[in-house]
Amino acid sequence: MNRIPIRIVLVRPRNPLNIGAAARAMANFGLRDLAVVVPYEATWREARSALGAQGLLHAAHHAASLAEAIGDRTFVVGTTSGARRTLDREPIPLSELPPLLKKRARHARVALLFGPEKHGLTNEHLSFCHVLVRIPTAADCPSMNLGQAVAVCTYELARADILSVRALETKSYSSPRAPVEALENLLQRAVQVLEQVGYLKPRFRERRLLRLRRLLFDCELTNNGVRILGDCLAQLRKNLGKCRSC
Amino acid sequence: MNRIPIRIVLVRPRNPLNIGAAARAMANFGLRDLAVVVPYEATWREARSALGAQGLLHAAHHAASLAEAIGDRTFVVGTTSGARRTLDREPIPLSELPPLLKKRARHARVALLFGPEKHGLTNEHLSFCHVLVRIPTAADCPSMNLGQAVAVCTYELARADILSVRALETKSYSSPRAPVEALENLLQRAVQVLEQVGYLKPRFRERRLLRLRRLLFDCELTNNGVRILGDCLAQLRKNLGKCRSC
Repeated sequence: MNRIPIRIVLVRPRNPLNIGAAARAMANFGLRDLAVVVPYEATWREARSALGAQGLLHAAHHAASLAEAIGDRTFVVGTTSGARRTLDREPIPLSELPPLLKKRARHARVALLFGPEKHGLTNEHLSFCHVLVRIPTAADCPSMNLGQAVAVCTYELARADILSVRALETKSYSSPRAPVEALENLLQRAVQVLEQVGYLKPRFRERRLLRLRRLLFDCELTNNGVRILGDCLAQLRKNLGKCRSC
Repeated sequence: MNRIPIRIVLVRPRNPLNIGAAARAMANFGLRDLAVVVPYEATWREARSALGAQGLLHAAHHAASLAEAIGDRTFVVGTTSGARRTLDREPIPLSELPPLLKKRARHARVALLFGPEKHGLTNEHLSFCHVLVRIPTAADCPSMNLGQAVAVCTYELARADILSVRALETKSYSSPRAPVEALENLLQRAVQVLEQVGYLKPRFRERRLLRLRRLLFDCELTNNGVRILGDCLAQLRKNLGKCRSC
């Protein structure tokens, strides 16, 4: 799939740990293009010494203004928390961003903006945006940590890509289910052991046998599971066979 | 609204900031139930003084073992990075977790496990899991920050509306799924028997124990099933107890 180039823009972040965390999340989800608008000088120095994603941080663009950070982008997306009341437009939920980008910004160069930790993007920042996006958070705790918000947004963008190629990369993850004949054979071996220890006395026998079969078949064992249980039973039988009092 | 109750379990996290960040993300996406397995005492104290989500952190369960943290849960999900090479099962991508929970764990109490920052969940931790989940990250930077991984997973669950389940067509089970603590108890009783018959000799012990736990947990037994197997084990023990040569 043809990737839409996306730049992450952090607007005046205060905490260097958040810049590092944003860079790490970007690296996790295959994004490379980071711009940071005039963070405090000390913040910027400290952020660049953060562990992980150093390459990305060192290549990051340190811009003096939002306009400079956005630069050559053709489609700008602003993030905002659900708490914000005075917006000039209704934000879309994050999950609707990837289809919107595919439809409206197919050939675009995109910038995705994140505001400062305390108050988010101002109305002036938002005026640069073609569309506003909201991560749907709980009403009683709407505001996300900056690094986590970047992680969730970049995950959602990668997720949309990943879903389109999923059929290619997903393997089956369990070994095949055992056939009924293997289950029945296992049951009969268990019955021999249980018979020997007195669990299947005539009075209970029929009811207990049916319950055991139901139980065993409900487990949907794999061939591997049947083998493991078979080994346990073999060991039990061997010991009970040696036992004079059983 | 009928919700699938989900507990987040952090296994031996090292960095208190990550515990605070995980709690914040949980609050953002409407989750309340957090358990933390024996973090270093200082880590735990520092984490509980973190800003934001204090209520959640103070109500968090501080557990001495993973089994204790999982407690009454009936369906356990382990998270793992794409980097891990030696897994006993293929993890599913995170986006497939919500439909799987809706289908298979409708009446379940779910635990979602996150491993320590450096190495993730061990094979023993993974043996408690019914399913493994992978956040699809870039091959050259697969390992996520713990707080961000929790944010992405809880976002995905909220996104799919799993936290407020409505229309569900899956059948309900006649008897409720047994909680993990009951399964672990059953396993320990089986271990005593298998120990006695020589199935768990030191050379094989660890590997076989993990396989048995995986096998048992995969069966998704009901309380009724646990009772039946418990009766079988009791009968076996009684006989082996009488046996002089075992």
